Amino acid sequence: MARARSEARRAEILQAAVEVIAERGYRGASLGAVAERVGLTQQGLLHYFPTKEALLVAVLEERDRWDTGGGSHTSAGPWRLDLLASLVDYNAMRPGIVQTFSALLGESVTEGHPAREFFTERYEQVRAEMAAVLRAEFGDRLPSGLTPEAAAPLLTAVMDGLQYQWLLAPETVDMPAAFRAFLTLLHGGQA
Amino acid sequence: MARARSEARRAEILQAAVEVIAERGYRGASLGAVAERVGLTQQGLLHYFPTKEALLVAVLEERDRWDTGGGSHTSAGPWRLDLLASLVDYNAMRPGIVQTFSALLGESVTEGHPAREFFTERYEQVRAEMAAVLRAEFGDRLPSGLTPEAAAPLLTAVMDGLQYQWLLAPETVDMPAAFRAFLTLLHGGQA
Repeated sequence: MARARSEARRAEILQAAVEVIAERGYRGASLGAVAERVGLTQQGLLHYFPTKEALLVAVLEERDRWDTGGGSHTSAGPWRLDLLASLVDYNAMRPGIVQTFSALLGESVTEGHPAREFFTERYEQVRAEMAAVLRAEFGDRLPSGLTPEAAAPLLTAVMDGLQYQWLLAPETVDMPAAFRAFLTLLHGGQA
Repeated sequence: MARARSEARRAEILQAAVEVIAERGYRGASLGAVAERVGLTQQGLLHYFPTKEALLVAVLEERDRWDTGGGSHTSAGPWRLDLLASLVDYNAMRPGIVQTFSALLGESVTEGHPAREFFTERYEQVRAEMAAVLRAEFGDRLPSGLTPEAAAPLLTAVMDGLQYQWLLAPETVDMPAAFRAFLTLLHGGQA
């Protein structure tokens, strides 16, 4: 019972964090602002999430769970290439969380950063998922002759890389259209 | 004469910063460490670069100048797709500067960051350069039917996105091989 209450509180905090991120962006998403929204002291919040990074990593994990339809990370489950395109459409409507992902990913490559392990493991899983998606779509070879395993890091890289270009110039970079152009490339042409 | 001396000093500081970054990484590259290496006080260094971000942006600008053969940013000048592959090979041998680029890019998407303008303008230029490279290689249409302008953000995104995957898992991700796989994709197959 105490555990269920604690779980519910945790979920409430994550929801509040998502809202604060959406309203104020990555920098504005302080532990204090999130604590205030759920009616906790900052000290009380630290009981659930000891650092801002820990809170943000939990937010990103929660997003991943939602985006994959509540399924496990390692299952290729519900993904298909056209659903990935819809996910990119959806991301283009939530700059706050995309900014949080991109800023934290940038920090994570520095020495001893607390989010490094999260991103390292996440990429391992995402590449495996993307390879499974590509195999389901194309079999053992893409039209270009690439294997799904060779194309998976590229699919992942394009999604991440386009986010930076879009965040910096949302009026210039049409992220959903660019991602669909990449799918055209994977299919070997405008078929 | 004073101006020439100042320019020389500036170049010396940038060189020292590149060395400190290579040895200690992004976090270790403090203004103090760079000042020490060139025999300046930190106060003296601030005369040339008022913040760590300003110094790092200058380092990245200098790298861009070197990488493009000393040519102007806006000229498509010496670039060809096979030279881009060589640049990726080269980057795989200098993790410090790649880490600096990637970490600063991540920070730059947050509100009011001092490197935001640098990266926004840089992407504008890089996309134009990449479009010119692709047009020189393929003409007005790639084998996939994409225009050079549609493929340019993808080429840029793949380079940046692969760097994150590689920095987080250098033993797992073969960045140069992955980039060459992308070139195969652009060419429409293993021709």
